[in-house]
Amino acid sequence: MIRTVVSSATREVVIGPDRPFVVIGERINPTGRKLLAAEMKVGDYSRVEADALAQVAAGAHMLDVNAGIPLADEPAILAEAIQLVQSLVDVPISIDSSIVEALEAGLSVYRGKALVNSVTGEEERLERVLPLVAEHGAAVVAISNDETGISEDPEVRFRVAAKIVERAASFGIPPEDVVVDPLVMPVGALRYAGRQVFDILHRLRDELGVNSTCGASNISFGLPNRHGINSAFLAMAIANGLTSAITNPLEPDIAQAVKAADVLMGNDRDCARWIRAFRQPSEGGRTRARRRSGRRRPAPAA
Amino acid sequence: MIRTVVSSATREVVIGPDRPFVVIGERINPTGRKLLAAEMKVGDYSRVEADALAQVAAGAHMLDVNAGIPLADEPAILAEAIQLVQSLVDVPISIDSSIVEALEAGLSVYRGKALVNSVTGEEERLERVLPLVAEHGAAVVAISNDETGISEDPEVRFRVAAKIVERAASFGIPPEDVVVDPLVMPVGALRYAGRQVFDILHRLRDELGVNSTCGASNISFGLPNRHGINSAFLAMAIANGLTSAITNPLEPDIAQAVKAADVLMGNDRDCARWIRAFRQPSEGGRTRARRRSGRRRPAPAA
Repeated sequence: MIRTVVSSATREVVIGPDRPFVVIGERINPTGRKLLAAEMKVGDYSRVEADALAQVAAGAHMLDVNAGIPLADEPAILAEAIQLVQSLVDVPISIDSSIVEALEAGLSVYRGKALVNSVTGEEERLERVLPLVAEHGAAVVAISNDETGISEDPEVRFRVAAKIVERAASFGIPPEDVVVDPLVMPVGALRYAGRQVFDILHRLRDELGVNSTCGASNISFGLPNRHGINSAFLAMAIANGLTSAITNPLEPDIAQAVKAADVLMGNDRDCARWIRAFRQPSEGGRTRARRRSGRRRPAPAA
Repeated sequence: MIRTVVSSATREVVIGPDRPFVVIGERINPTGRKLLAAEMKVGDYSRVEADALAQVAAGAHMLDVNAGIPLADEPAILAEAIQLVQSLVDVPISIDSSIVEALEAGLSVYRGKALVNSVTGEEERLERVLPLVAEHGAAVVAISNDETGISEDPEVRFRVAAKIVERAASFGIPPEDVVVDPLVMPVGALRYAGRQVFDILHRLRDELGVNSTCGASNISFGLPNRHGINSAFLAMAIANGLTSAITNPLEPDIAQAVKAADVLMGNDRDCARWIRAFRQPSEGGRTRARRRSGRRRPAPAA
């Protein structure tokens, strides 16, 4: 059975098809968050702190940390943010950057076995990122595009993933430390974007024997009620083999869909976590269960 | 491509993997609804009327009609209920009974091509129900259990389904008129009930080439927040090939999950139905969209 182990200094998280789905909190990312970007640039990490605590409280198993701010010293900021987050919470981190120097800076301060986010199938990235991953004994997210861009053909995306897994092995990185991102395109622009991902996920699990992750929110770009699409997408992707995702654990629809998917994949033993999250107040539920029930319409009575 | 066509006197519905998912409204069923049972037994169909109208208004593509009331004249009540429903709404009906005489009475008054719910793999049922289905040119739900009961082995359930499809053909009923129900067990009692159904659905589509349906609510029996499980289950089952379900269209979580799954399977062209259902009031949304948005927490801002 496929098993990717990542860790902080004190906690281990296992990603795998027979494990609860791993939610990687997406919030610590200045892309599209002007205020956060401006604050991080001047060394104000108060929002990073709040985002770290809130996401872990909401059930995130890992946190993605990104410091991609135009005209800023990304390596320094990423390293600072990672140290801060590791001082606050004990979940493992996905070190997220498109700049190799920033990945290197992040890895050099990281305590534990990180997930490096990411390498693509582009020759220059493979040659620079994979040695770094091998040197630090980390795991890596493999994004299935290459020099030719993102193919709309799932067969091509699968082959790029297979190439990255093979190349990683040549650097001494075993397949279980490669977590493939099949690349989620907006379904509003590409009609079969969902089906394509489901097909690739199947093959990643059955043919390549690797774990998978994705930036789930991209699927709903441009559509109304994005959380409604995102939560159904996650459940459907999990049913096809997705084992982790970078997403927003603070969104109730998404948190519920992931918990339900764990039950339905047989990965929530005795449905214990589901029952704890949703039992009725009269059966001993906590404040959270009461608050939730306020959102729901009662079932129609006979 | 698999295509099951059912109809009322004036409307045709096509079930198939490249079509919007077909929701068969489950509400007209006295099982577990004491008040409805008591009323139907004495010829009061006011609640049947209300349930028919409400489910169609909520988007049901078909309605299941069941009159299984202990010590009542089920054939007569079922025939009356079907005539009433057909006088009110134009969606095709799933004629639901375990009593062959009731199926016969229902079929004899039905206008259009009905879905007969159901036949099992039991020899006596096959020999009595299939000729009736063939005689009326109907379609039939094939439930994958037989004399030995419901197997926990998905391989056995698949073989029972294959046997029914073969037997139906011997009566002149083509595979496209057999809609297989893989039998959904409660995941609270059977840990891999969800995975089993997903596996069988795949094979029904890819190996047997037939449409599928299920009583979706059974999956969550005994668990809290059943709609949360049911809606994720439907999305996951659709991603594995489920093409219709007997479920509750009045439940917002379920209605949303099915609409989202249509988008994600590429079966909601240009996402037109999703956008119509969920666009914001400021963009011209209707009362329904406004009411819905009241249930949702706003997305966390940066």
